[in-house]
Formats: sequence, C-alpha cells, structure tokens
Amino acid sequence: MSTTVGFVGLGAMGFPMAVNLVRRQFRVRGFDMRREACEALAAEGGTAATSAADAAKGAEVLVLMVVNAAQAESVLFDAGACEAMAEGGRIVLMATCPPSVVAALAKRVAATGRVLIDAPVSGGVVGATKATLTIMVGTPTAVLETVKPVLDALGDKVFHVGQEPGQGAAVKTVNQLLCGVHIAAAAEGLVLAEKAGVDPALALKILQGSAAGSWMLNDRGPRMLEDEPRVTSAVDIFVKDLGIVLDAGRAGKVATPLAALAHQMFLSASAQGLGTQDDSQVIEAYRSLAGLMGE
Amino acid sequence: MSTTVGFVGLGAMGFPMAVNLVRRQFRVRGFDMRREACEALAAEGGTAATSAADAAKGAEVLVLMVVNAAQAESVLFDAGACEAMAEGGRIVLMATCPPSVVAALAKRVAATGRVLIDAPVSGGVVGATKATLTIMVGTPTAVLETVKPVLDALGDKVFHVGQEPGQGAAVKTVNQLLCGVHIAAAAEGLVLAEKAGVDPALALKILQGSAAGSWMLNDRGPRMLEDEPRVTSAVDIFVKDLGIVLDAGRAGKVATPLAALAHQMFLSASAQGLGTQDDSQVIEAYRSLAGLMGE
Repeated sequence: MSTTVGFVGLGAMGFPMAVNLVRRQFRVRGFDMRREACEALAAEGGTAATSAADAAKGAEVLVLMVVNAAQAESVLFDAGACEAMAEGGRIVLMATCPPSVVAALAKRVAATGRVLIDAPVSGGVVGATKATLTIMVGTPTAVLETVKPVLDALGDKVFHVGQEPGQGAAVKTVNQLLCGVHIAAAAEGLVLAEKAGVDPALALKILQGSAAGSWMLNDRGPRMLEDEPRVTSAVDIFVKDLGIVLDAGRAGKVATPLAALAHQMFLSASAQGLGTQDDSQVIEAYRSLAGLMGE
Repeated sequence: MSTTVGFVGLGAMGFPMAVNLVRRQFRVRGFDMRREACEALAAEGGTAATSAADAAKGAEVLVLMVVNAAQAESVLFDAGACEAMAEGGRIVLMATCPPSVVAALAKRVAATGRVLIDAPVSGGVVGATKATLTIMVGTPTAVLETVKPVLDALGDKVFHVGQEPGQGAAVKTVNQLLCGVHIAAAAEGLVLAEKAGVDPALALKILQGSAAGSWMLNDRGPRMLEDEPRVTSAVDIFVKDLGIVLDAGRAGKVATPLAALAHQMFLSASAQGLGTQDDSQVIEAYRSLAGLMGE
C-alpha cells in the first residue's frame, strides 16, 4: 500500500515537487492558498485538499514547502495541520528557515507526539522539476530512514548532515551566505571594471575563465549587464535569506561580516525600489555607490 | 632573424615563462637577483645577464615579471633598464600593479622614447609553465601587434581590454577582488558550519555541488580544513593585492566595500603570524572572530 503524503505550498518549486511524488506512486493530498494550484495538482493525479489540516489528515508524511518559518508555524499550529496528523506522523520542513527556529519548532512538534524533520533544499525550480534537488537533512538516523523514499522522489543528493533538527538549516544558511556574497562580489567587480572604462562584457568573459569564477558569476553576471533582465530569484529573497544568515550568526555567536555587508547591499537595492526585480540588480546599489546612478 | 627578449624576474612564474620563450626560438637574456636562476635559464638555452640593464641591452622587447610596481620602477629607472634599450623598445609589464601606477609609468617610459605595455597575467605557476596564462592587455592596437608573438608564447588567452595603459591592470584588479572575496567568503561559511556542529568536510562537499560554488571554494576550501596545508599562494599576497584593489577604488572613486572587508581579514591573519602561510589560512582570522582560536 502506498504512503499518503500531505503537501502544503504548491508554488514555483512546491508544485513540481508534489507532481514528482505523484509520479513515484505516492498518494498526494496538496494544499495551497491559491485554489487553482490545488486543482492543477488534482489534474496531475493528486488530491486537492480544502485546507492545510485537510491535507495533513490521514497522511503519514506532511511536506511543508512554504515561504518561511512564520508560514510553517502558522500551517502547523494555527491552521491545525500538526493536530490533524496521527500520532507519530512525520512533518518534513523544506523551506529555508533560521536554524534556531527549526530547532524550536521541532521541540514544539515533538511535544504533540509527532516528529519534525529539518530538510531544506537547494537547486531552484530546475532542480524541483527534474527531481535533482540537494536536500540537507538534520534529524536522527532512524527518523531519516522513515522518510527517505519521499526525499529520494524529490532530490538526487540527499545529505544527512547531523542528528539535530536545525543542522540541515545551518548548512542551507551557509549555502545562502556564499550565494549572496558571490552575487554582491560579482556586482562590485563589474562596477569597478565599468568605472575603469573597460567593456564589462569582456571583463566578465575574462573573469569567468579565471580563478575569479563562481557559479553565481556565470549565472547572474550576464544579467547584471542587461537593461531588463528576467527575474529568476528576487532581490528581496536575499534580503530575507542573508537576514537568516545574520540571525543564525547572532544565535550561535559567529561573526559573519561579509554576509552582513552583502545584506546591506541587497537592502539598498530593495530601498531603490528593486525588491521584486532579479537579484542580479543588486548591481544598481553598487552603481549608486560609484556615482553611476541610472545607467 | 629571431627577436631578442630581455626578461627580468625569474621567480616561480617568471622562470617557466622565460623558458617558454626560449622554446619558441626567442633569444632570451634573463636577469634575476638570484644568480642561480640566471644560470638555470642559461642551461635551458637562454643567456644569463649580469644586471637588469644588461638583460635589456640589445633587446627589442623587455618583459618585467617582478613582484610589484616599486620593483618595476626600480628596474627601469634606478637599474637603468629603460635607458639600456634602443629607442622604440617595448617594455611589457606583467606584474600585478595598481592601474594608476601603470599609467604613470607608461607616461614616464614614453618620455624616453620607449613604450610600456600594460599586460598583467592570471593563471599562476601552472599557467606559466604550460603557457596557458590569461593576459590582459591595455595598449593601443598597433602597439599590441608588435609584441603579440611574445605574448602568444606565454599564454593562450590574450585579451585586448583597452587602448590605455592601466586598463589591463584594472581587469587584473577586478580579478583579484573576486579571488580575495571568494576565499574570505569560503572561510566565513565554513566557520559558520563548524560552529553549528556540522562536519565542515561534508558541508564543503555539499556547497561545491551547489549554486554556492566557486573556483576558490574548490581550490582553497579543502586546504582550509587541513592542519598544515601546502602553500600555493601566501596570505600576504592578498594583503598586497586587495590593497591594490582599494587603491584602485580610491583613485577611480569607486567604493569596494566587500574587498575592503576581505582585506581586513587577510590583514588580521597576517597579524596572527600567518603572512607566509597558504592564503586559505585566512580561515584562522574567522575562527578568532568566532571564539574558535587555536583549533
């Protein structure tokens, strides 16, 4: 008999993830605030739940792919999803959340007789669609075993990073630290090249082929030089995620000065009205610093 | 008849570069303060010069692969290498120097009737040995043509980045900005993972395979986790090179806040007595920040 999986959060990543579970023969009960997302899942062979609690009801595993920790808490305790599950039910939290908040949520869930599994992802919409996500799991080994088939249906790089809830979130936090700093560094470098009168497209090409290269320089660099780049991930996502890095540093007493500075640059870009634009547009904050506004 | 090339600075990169010129049938007159380096070049088919001026005498092209701008100036004007060349002689400056200093040196050389060509490199000892260096040239097109065969013997990625001396140095400066910030960011992230109780080797493996990846994370990351890593490039090299980035920013009125912060971290590592150790050891400055000293 196949496992029933509740799935809350059918957004750009959550929807293809839920579909991947359906394709692997899980019974999927999906819920999202947008009714059409639930219906689209039903069309793919899942079940459209009428609420988060309805998605959780009768599910052995509940996946949360919501926007942030506050939404996860609200789904579990305000909307009653935690209580709707049978005792011993497993809740897989895959959103990017502060490690200390994940640890606290896990305690609160444990007090009700259910189990929260810390399992954030990286890989974006492409990874979510192709089931090639990286999944960073912080939970006891015995607990991981019980949800491994679900995780294997969603990603091909499942890493067990620690026995404690919050340790998966810690690795995801480090991931976001590097991503955010690398985007800001690319912008800082390209503006320095611009101001020196060097063709930034040629500078970018040289840098991509040298020891200065990074995944983000390759991906975001070209969009930094476009007038109206398409949005793959917004400036405000890094305002949030680098904020999580700083919160994690504060909670664990670790100074993260580059992350703190990069956060200020994304915040400045957001202050310029670019919060919903592609995160490559943090370069506008650097252009302002260099007296190149509006170019 | 083959071109005579003077070559000053037969160090870890300069020596294999001079040997590559010999193999391409240039007549190479090499000089270095270490007599044994000159003799080693003679053993490879070059000529051991007795001074920088002796290396320059009769050379159509003089390559400078010295440590910094001060050495280049000293070789050219104190040691008389510039005057030793015939009028119209071409001086190829390949050391990492501040763009404004390169521009000033070019003017001073031009006043003597010779030509200075701004052509810094990246690619390290491996690129120098295999003749696969990236060379960033700032000089008028007509001048570049006259030294192109020499540059092609040293690198396989010769980029003409601008008509002005100093523009090659500007791109090299941006290259060092990204390299230095990426090393510091890798250290900042790995210490955050350590403090969260996550195995840093596992965290590194996850990060290398994600959007958090960079050339420096791949190359320096593993050595950050070793107790006594071999030295590929020293902490003090980045104290110097990020210092050049900041000088370039000051001269061009461009704020480079991430570079300024990374510079402080390398300076702190140097203050801890690690200046001659591998630059990956900037991680010790982060461990100090996080209260993990001596681990």
